[in-house]
Formats: sequence, C-alpha cells, structure tokens
Amino acid sequence: MNAIILSVGDELVLGQTIDTNSAWIDQQLAAVGCEVIADAIVADRQETIEAAIRLAAAHADFLIISGGIGPTADDLTRHALAAVMGVPLELNEAWLARLESFFQKLGRAMPQTNRIQAMIPRGAETIENTAGTAAGIHVKSGISNLKSEIFVMPGVPKEMKIMFERDVLPHIRAKGGGAVILSRTLHTFGLGESSVAEKLGDLMKRDRNPSVGTTVANGIVSLRINARLPSRDEAQQQLDSTTDACRAALGDLIFGADADTLPSVLAASLASARKTICTAESCTGGLLAKMFTDIPGSSDYFAQGWVTYSNEAKHDRLGVSENILNVHGAVSEPVVEAMARAARRLAKSDFALSISGIAGPSGGTPSKPVGTVCIALAIPPVAPGGGRGKGGYQESRVSSRTFHFTGDREMIRDRSAKIALAMLRFHLLDKPMPF
Amino acid sequence: MNAIILSVGDELVLGQTIDTNSAWIDQQLAAVGCEVIADAIVADRQETIEAAIRLAAAHADFLIISGGIGPTADDLTRHALAAVMGVPLELNEAWLARLESFFQKLGRAMPQTNRIQAMIPRGAETIENTAGTAAGIHVKSGISNLKSEIFVMPGVPKEMKIMFERDVLPHIRAKGGGAVILSRTLHTFGLGESSVAEKLGDLMKRDRNPSVGTTVANGIVSLRINARLPSRDEAQQQLDSTTDACRAALGDLIFGADADTLPSVLAASLASARKTICTAESCTGGLLAKMFTDIPGSSDYFAQGWVTYSNEAKHDRLGVSENILNVHGAVSEPVVEAMARAARRLAKSDFALSISGIAGPSGGTPSKPVGTVCIALAIPPVAPGGGRGKGGYQESRVSSRTFHFTGDREMIRDRSAKIALAMLRFHLLDKPMPF
Repeated sequence: MNAIILSVGDELVLGQTIDTNSAWIDQQLAAVGCEVIADAIVADRQETIEAAIRLAAAHADFLIISGGIGPTADDLTRHALAAVMGVPLELNEAWLARLESFFQKLGRAMPQTNRIQAMIPRGAETIENTAGTAAGIHVKSGISNLKSEIFVMPGVPKEMKIMFERDVLPHIRAKGGGAVILSRTLHTFGLGESSVAEKLGDLMKRDRNPSVGTTVANGIVSLRINARLPSRDEAQQQLDSTTDACRAALGDLIFGADADTLPSVLAASLASARKTICTAESCTGGLLAKMFTDIPGSSDYFAQGWVTYSNEAKHDRLGVSENILNVHGAVSEPVVEAMARAARRLAKSDFALSISGIAGPSGGTPSKPVGTVCIALAIPPVAPGGGRGKGGYQESRVSSRTFHFTGDREMIRDRSAKIALAMLRFHLLDKPMPF
Repeated sequence: MNAIILSVGDELVLGQTIDTNSAWIDQQLAAVGCEVIADAIVADRQETIEAAIRLAAAHADFLIISGGIGPTADDLTRHALAAVMGVPLELNEAWLARLESFFQKLGRAMPQTNRIQAMIPRGAETIENTAGTAAGIHVKSGISNLKSEIFVMPGVPKEMKIMFERDVLPHIRAKGGGAVILSRTLHTFGLGESSVAEKLGDLMKRDRNPSVGTTVANGIVSLRINARLPSRDEAQQQLDSTTDACRAALGDLIFGADADTLPSVLAASLASARKTICTAESCTGGLLAKMFTDIPGSSDYFAQGWVTYSNEAKHDRLGVSENILNVHGAVSEPVVEAMARAARRLAKSDFALSISGIAGPSGGTPSKPVGTVCIALAIPPVAPGGGRGKGGYQESRVSSRTFHFTGDREMIRDRSAKIALAMLRFHLLDKPMPF
C-alpha cells in the first residue's frame, strides 16, 4: 500500500511558504504502514496540476492532494481533477445549502464566488469539512481508469488536519498495510538538546530500532521515538519499552508526551489538586495568563491576572512600594516577590506567579542586560488556614529566582513564561527544579 | 526558462525532516526569473529516484537535485542518475585525491566508503564542494537526450546553499532569457478570502501579470503580488502599480504590507498619535495584552491590563456590578462597556479595550453559543480635558459590539483579539469599521 502526496500553491513553488502539510501527512501514513512514494508540490496552474494528478494516479494506491480548493480564481485543483477524470464539475446541493447556512450564521450573504466550493467532479463524493467552507473531494479508485483512490483537502493546515484525521486516515488504515511505523514524542523543558542527548546515551544510536531522535522547538526539546516493525503489536511493545527507557534516563525533565504542552500538563495538575493560580506579569505582558487560559476549562484553576507593565501599574494595582522599585529596580527579586504576594492575596488564589524582566531589544544595562528576568512563586503559608484568611489573612511564602535568557524579544518572553510554569510544576511535584 | 527541484531522502518522505532546501532554491530561482514547475521529494530508493529524474528531465530546462550523494549505502542519487543516462559511474581521480588529502589533514585514513563520493556518471562533471566531502555533479543538457541540464548537490542545507550560490545559480542566471520575479504581500483583516477576491475582481485574473493571489493565515487574508518581467526596473514599476490598484480596490481593509502585523501597525499608530491603551480581558485571557506587548517599545503606549476571567474578578478589580453581571450575563455589551470604562479610568489611559466571550468548547448556551464575543472600546470624552480629570474625571465614551466567531477555542480567542485591534485601528483612522 503506497501513496503520493501532492500540495498545490504558487506560494509553495515560489518558496514563500514552506510546505508543512506533506511532512505531517507523511507521518500519519507511516504510522499506518502506508509507504509514501513521493511528495510533490506544483503551482496553481491547471495544466501542471492535471499532469501531476495523471502521473501520480497511475503510480500510487492513494493520491492525497491538499490546496487549490478555495473560493478564488487561483484555486484550480477541482477543475484539474475533473479534467483528468474527463467529467464536468457538478454542484453539490447539500454542500451549497451548508455554505449558505454557514454565511447566514455570520449574518452575511454568501459571496457568489463561494458557490464553486460546492462543486465537485461528477462521480466524486464530498468529504466533511468541520473547520472551513471548502468541501473535500473523494474519488474512488477505478473511476475513469485511475489507479489511485484520490482525496482532495484544503491547504489550510488546520482544516486539512481535521479532515484527514476524521475522514481520510481511517479509510486508508482500513486498507491495511506493510511494515508499521509507530511513533511517540516525549517533551522536555529546561535543558539544552545536547544535555538531553548526553543523558539518553546509547538510546540515540543511529541503527537502533526503535530509533530515538531529538528536535527542538521554542525551548522544548522533544524526543521522537520511531518503532518500525512488521506487526502493530510488536511495534507497540517496542515503542513502549523504549519510552520507558527514555523516561528512566530523563526522569522529571519529561513533562509530557505527544499532544501535551506545559500549560496542558499544569492545568491537569492544578485541576486534580483542586488548586488555583493567578498571575502578575510585566515583561511577558499577558503571555503567562494566555498560556494558562489556552486550556479549555481553565476557569477551574485560573480566575484573574494582572499585566503591570509600568512601575506606576505595579504600584497602583499591586501596591509595590515606590521605595522597593527605586532601590532594587523593577527587574528585581524583591519586586516580583511583592507582586506575587499581592496578587495571591487580592485574587484569593492558592498560588501566584509573577514575572518582571528585560525582554529587549532595548532597556538593558551592564548590571541587568537584556534577557535578565526575575520570577516569583507565592504559595500558601505553612500555618493551617491555607492563607484563606481564617482569623486574618496569613502571608504567603514566596520564592524567587533570577534568570538570564538569550535570544530575541519573543524568545525571552516565551522562555520566561515557560520557566514560570516549570517552577509551579516542580513545586506541585514537591521536587527541586533541576535547572 | 524553468526548473524542477528534486529532494532525496527517507527522512523527508517519512515526514521526520521538513524539506526547507526546496523552498530556499525556489526563492533563488524566482529572483533570477527561472520558473519552478514543481518541487518533488522521493525516498532513498534507486528505482524511484530514476523515475523522478526521467520524468523531470523530460519536462524542465533545469533539474536541481539535492540529497543522496553521501558516503553510505542509502545514498543512491548518483547511481540513479547514471542509470538514467545509461552510463557507468567512473572514479574522478582529482576528487579522490582531494578526499584523501582532506582525511590526511584530519590525521585519519580515508574510510573506503568515502571513495564513492568521488564517483560520477561518465560524461558528467564534478561541482566544487567547499563545505563537505561529496562532489556535486553537473550534467549538461542533451547528454543521452536529456532535455534538462542537471545539477546534483548534497542534502545538507549548509553544503547545498554554498554550492548552489557558488556554482549553480550563476550558471542558471547566465542562461538569462527568463524574467525577474519581484513580490510584495499586502495584509487584510476582517473579510473572508472570497469577499476580498470579489473586491479585487479582475486583478486576480489568472493570466494577469503582475499576478495577485490570496492566502489565509490565522484570519489574515494576504494578497501575494508577483511581478514577472524581463527587467528588474519594469518588474518594480509593475509591482508598484498593481499594489496601488489593490489598495484602491480594498482601501482601509489593507492594514499593512510584508512584515507588518496588526499589533505592529497599531503600535506605530498609537506611538505617532502619542496615545495610550489598556486592556481588560475575559475569554482572551491576556492574549490582547500579549499582542500589544509583542512589539518592542510597547511601554510607550501600553502601561497595564487586567485579566478578569471570573465574575468575581470583574467585580473586585473593575467594579462591574453584580447586578449587571446577573441581569445581562458576563458575556454582554453592558459588561464589556463597564470593564472598558473602569479600565480606562484606573489606568488613566487614552483608550481601553475590553473583551468577554465564550471561547468554548464548553460554556455555550442557545442564546449565547460558543463563539459569542462582546468587545468594547472606551475613548476620551468629547469635552475638553480629554478625560484626564481636569475638574473631576470625565466619563469615557464607550462603544461595544457583539460578534459570532466560528472555529475552535484558539481561533475564537485569536479572532476576538484581532477584531479588538481592528476596532481601535478604525477609531484611530476616524472611520467606521467596514465589517
């Protein structure tokens, strides 16, 4: 069982957008044992798209196309497919009705140009699109002597992925396949790629199966484990044992797997511990609160946060004394400790995280260069009452640290928020932070 | 003059490495007016590589291959090329000598496996590799009836880029004939892709030059203008005139060009108007403040923001009365208006933006489904004093609107923050928001 992946778009062949859809689809197919013969990218030109479809449809069991089914004049994939099939495009009334009600909900009339998104080649079927207006297109193999079974999806990654997982992949998986490749990704934060690799040692040997490779994205060092074996059971078994070995080597540095993120893991911990958190941010300007509220149901553990960007705001909102601000400066441990203490008291939450730093590019000084960031965590007092003010408010316990990050403004803000999450994570684990 | 780009590597068709070489080469070729017909990726399989070379060599003036010329058993590009040419691989003595001296300098004997890197198809020439051990391979067009002139380069991006710029690109540029392609991107927000296309009309005609295409990313509909003309001056002139035509068709819907973002454009407007903004957010949970503070120097216009996620926070921090909250609900225009009014007063800023909505996936009701978002903008009073409390604080003027967004939590939060930015943008333009 094999497939060819075809991406359509001028922006792709002009190198203005990097095609990430193909690599993602490649991974999904590998996981179900469908071999990818080739990934191809062509421009928004009907004759070129036709040639690519004709060629691929003669060679592969599956042809998976993304892009070129938008509503505009440069969206020509459906026309090319119909031409290769030697059939006309026909209006799918059911889809047209969906489109019209979609625009009704938006309180707008449907632009006439959108009608084309309900047109599919005669003999083809529509594929559900839960995230957009374009109907996916499914052509069974054998139609007009095409070897390939063909799926056409939108080029917008989000729409494509939902459609692929929902209606394309199950179909391909059902056809069964050859050698299975199962993958799992483990995520770490805090150490660099080489330090992680050192701890993994022989697990990263090139010829190992399952193989273990590392990738880095936004400070998260991820381990990609690939088990390539004849049977699904074997692959699963091997994948699990290598996963255990990686966990043994890295311990709590691993915060999650696959779709987990630092915020999603923290959300789960806070929810299960029935604890609440609030935030007081300066240089991250709301990013930390945004991360906490990225997670559905965040109201269970997050009620409020402050963005106190100026000194005046730190004083007016959180009562940070002008004296502390003047003596120690806005980027100092005394200031973030005062911010966290006040935030926790005002929000009546179990925990409070505060951040103040110099994200740059300007604002650095010799003693506090760009990348200097102070972070504090306020937690309940030891005494009974949990800081909930039985017999008067009991002051928080607060710990703070100063970090020095490299990189640009975006990196410094991102790392600052993630380290803050890590501080809370290790507190909830009741373990010292190993970095 | 046109080309096909071929990348070779198992890691690419397994989706474990994203092919960035092709996009980079695409850009280099576009800049010298060489049209890329297609980018293709194939696995490390000789028969597949052969098929790809045969196909491409029959269609394009240039075939540019990267990958598969390393020293290991899975490097098969040179074998495939020789097979397509119908000639044997021959040892290039000069390159072998280089390899041996290279390893001598390292104080090592050359591994026998490296000999293969000095082998090229009979009739081909080596291409200098200043950054690695593999000889690049150059095959003139016409050899064994290949239409394409073929260049084979290493897959390692660093080696490939040096080799391409040094010995491949000059060669292609010298062939001339082609046009220069200059590009510009204009960004719009607020209308869907199809509505933007309708306003552009004939500007998006397929055969037009400069061409105008649309792409969508995170709600931003961007126009990609590509001018393909013989001379750089002509291309620049045509690019500018088509840009003017797009601006005439879309007016203020266009908020920026190329690297501009909504926050960067707002930052510039606020700075030049010497105005300040604060934020009060519920469902966006800090995202709006984060967007304002993404921009270096944001302290000039942004001093503070509130994340009032719970009703209690809206009441305790911003004084939103329990009565309003109970009667209208947290997601209502009266509530966001109260939030904006209080935020502007407390922060002593010129403007305040507030957002309250249902980002989902849960929390929707029949009357207020997921995606319902209320946004308010508070601005200075008409009376002199600009709301800065000369003779007592003068109440803000506040306008609010209710929106209905589709998509998942992330999309709803993103669109909410962007619409809020748009409301402020059109207020600063002193124009009604056209959506």
